[in-house]
Amino acid sequence: MPRAARTDIVQPDGRHVHLYGDFASAPAGYQAPAMPNGVYERRWNPLRREWVLVAASRQARTFLPDRADCPLCPSRPGHSTEIPAARYEAAVFENRFPAMVPWPPAGGSCEVVVYTDEHEGSFATLPASRLERLAEVWTDRYRELSARRGIKYVYIFENRGEQVGVTLHHPHGQIYAYPFVPPVAASELARRTGACLQCELVADELKGRHRVLINEGGMVAYVPAYARWPYEVHVAPRAHRAAFPDLSPAGRLALLVAMQRITRAYDRLFEVPMPYMMAMHQSPAAVIEQAHLHVEFYPIMRERGKLKYLAGSESGAGVFINDTLAEESAQRLRDVLDEPTPSPAAGDRP
Amino acid sequence: MPRAARTDIVQPDGRHVHLYGDFASAPAGYQAPAMPNGVYERRWNPLRREWVLVAASRQARTFLPDRADCPLCPSRPGHSTEIPAARYEAAVFENRFPAMVPWPPAGGSCEVVVYTDEHEGSFATLPASRLERLAEVWTDRYRELSARRGIKYVYIFENRGEQVGVTLHHPHGQIYAYPFVPPVAASELARRTGACLQCELVADELKGRHRVLINEGGMVAYVPAYARWPYEVHVAPRAHRAAFPDLSPAGRLALLVAMQRITRAYDRLFEVPMPYMMAMHQSPAAVIEQAHLHVEFYPIMRERGKLKYLAGSESGAGVFINDTLAEESAQRLRDVLDEPTPSPAAGDRP
Repeated sequence: MPRAARTDIVQPDGRHVHLYGDFASAPAGYQAPAMPNGVYERRWNPLRREWVLVAASRQARTFLPDRADCPLCPSRPGHSTEIPAARYEAAVFENRFPAMVPWPPAGGSCEVVVYTDEHEGSFATLPASRLERLAEVWTDRYRELSARRGIKYVYIFENRGEQVGVTLHHPHGQIYAYPFVPPVAASELARRTGACLQCELVADELKGRHRVLINEGGMVAYVPAYARWPYEVHVAPRAHRAAFPDLSPAGRLALLVAMQRITRAYDRLFEVPMPYMMAMHQSPAAVIEQAHLHVEFYPIMRERGKLKYLAGSESGAGVFINDTLAEESAQRLRDVLDEPTPSPAAGDRP
Repeated sequence: MPRAARTDIVQPDGRHVHLYGDFASAPAGYQAPAMPNGVYERRWNPLRREWVLVAASRQARTFLPDRADCPLCPSRPGHSTEIPAARYEAAVFENRFPAMVPWPPAGGSCEVVVYTDEHEGSFATLPASRLERLAEVWTDRYRELSARRGIKYVYIFENRGEQVGVTLHHPHGQIYAYPFVPPVAASELARRTGACLQCELVADELKGRHRVLINEGGMVAYVPAYARWPYEVHVAPRAHRAAFPDLSPAGRLALLVAMQRITRAYDRLFEVPMPYMMAMHQSPAAVIEQAHLHVEFYPIMRERGKLKYLAGSESGAGVFINDTLAEESAQRLRDVLDEPTPSPAAGDRP
């Protein structure tokens, strides 16, 4: 597959839309939705020593629309969506109800990444060609947003499931470009001397083996010993790579294939679509040598029909309680892990 | 009301129960419930730089029992509960499904504080006499647990509502005695020089006034400018007090009265019992001069019928997004704030 062509469109309210790959133009009469007025501020919490984003227009945001009203589907005559195209492969647009806006004092950016123009399905069901396209999209967005003036950290993530607060079902993720290095990234990078921590963690898991789920194509997936969530899984390249652009195209696809196998295992684990958060940690915009790209999945179920809640200990003290042993969770996930999907180039493999 | 007498009982499995004030003995044939076997570990998360508590017996814990099976109600013939008493005022017992056990390597303690022997109601509906009793219970537990060998931080909290993961409806809170200073307390106390941060914050709020809800009896309640949750409220003594034992009995009651007024306002705000977390931050066991007792309420609703979820930005980056302006939330809460309940000593006041 050739490198994706990108088409840029600016909506009347100034928001950018990027269409990746092939697409068909919006139907005649397309009316772009417009961003409502809002108050956007960044406030310092001196107790927690962290920034809080205030975004006081979000209350009106689209909430679980009917399928026919999905704002991420292609536009059709009489139904204008966020995507000014009648068909597309993958699309990125600036969120109409963002947590940050690009102008001061909030000074950040919130993008929505639409994985496919097909409404049904999820990251777990994307065909290999879409995975490859998505790897290119993430690489492109990381590169462009990291280079933007004032941006300190680009954070690619996905919320999945109504129990995580997802308000749209169409397969999509998000990208926040923060004007500061967020606390979680900061603590991961706090050890500024010595070898890469993530390299050590991967080596330890591979040595121990009993929490490893995948070790293939240069990618390792494991339930960390110190998981906060019962079925938390981390996925990382075995080699030291700071961010998406530092991986080869084959490496990027291998990472997405490993991620997809994890999400498929999640859906099989309790035989329901697993609600989860996916958090991708890469190097800050000002490249830090110790940064090592890795993806963290936080599935929020602890057993069939039961959610893991963040309650007093987690929220008020910062101490997570995990009801499961990581070693046992790894075994349960291994039991439902499928074989890797052949990449499109290897489609004729038996 | 005289200082509460305390009666200590040790259950056959070694767990302690403390009955505060008057009580009636357990009915003949009382059978204490026994703690199941479990795995309790403390694991270091080197990425987040925090301890995670592993408690692998909790999966079997009591989950939303019928009212007749409530384990916090008084025991009656044929129904033995956690409380070996047929009637009581307030009770504390070591959790049968704890996150930590007092022996190594976890080395902590998890207590349940039962506010009343009446099954119905909540902290918001406790009569003044129970509030006064509860203030004594919290003071006693803080004192005793802080003095315990190996305990570094005593954390009093309450989870309320099924949406916060509460599995028992009987009015109760919890106390965790951690063998380390938890991350949230550590960051609050990180500024080790200069004046007390909490004293400054209270003074700032009183100067600004527009986020203050209560300023009475030496207690101040306000929506902090930097709230993470839409209706987050902090309550603190105006004077610098490190912990419960440093307040006078009248001061303790004033704090609980202020807390109760906040919870009553919460229940009125959306006309449903507000699910919330209450987090009490006091001095670590090794007293730190800068510590200033304060209570943080995190109600998890953002508007009628809608919850605030912790999703990708909060969980994966540590950046909270607040959909509301603290100043507007304060106004809405002030609109539903009642008058203070007269203390029992002032029962004849008009």
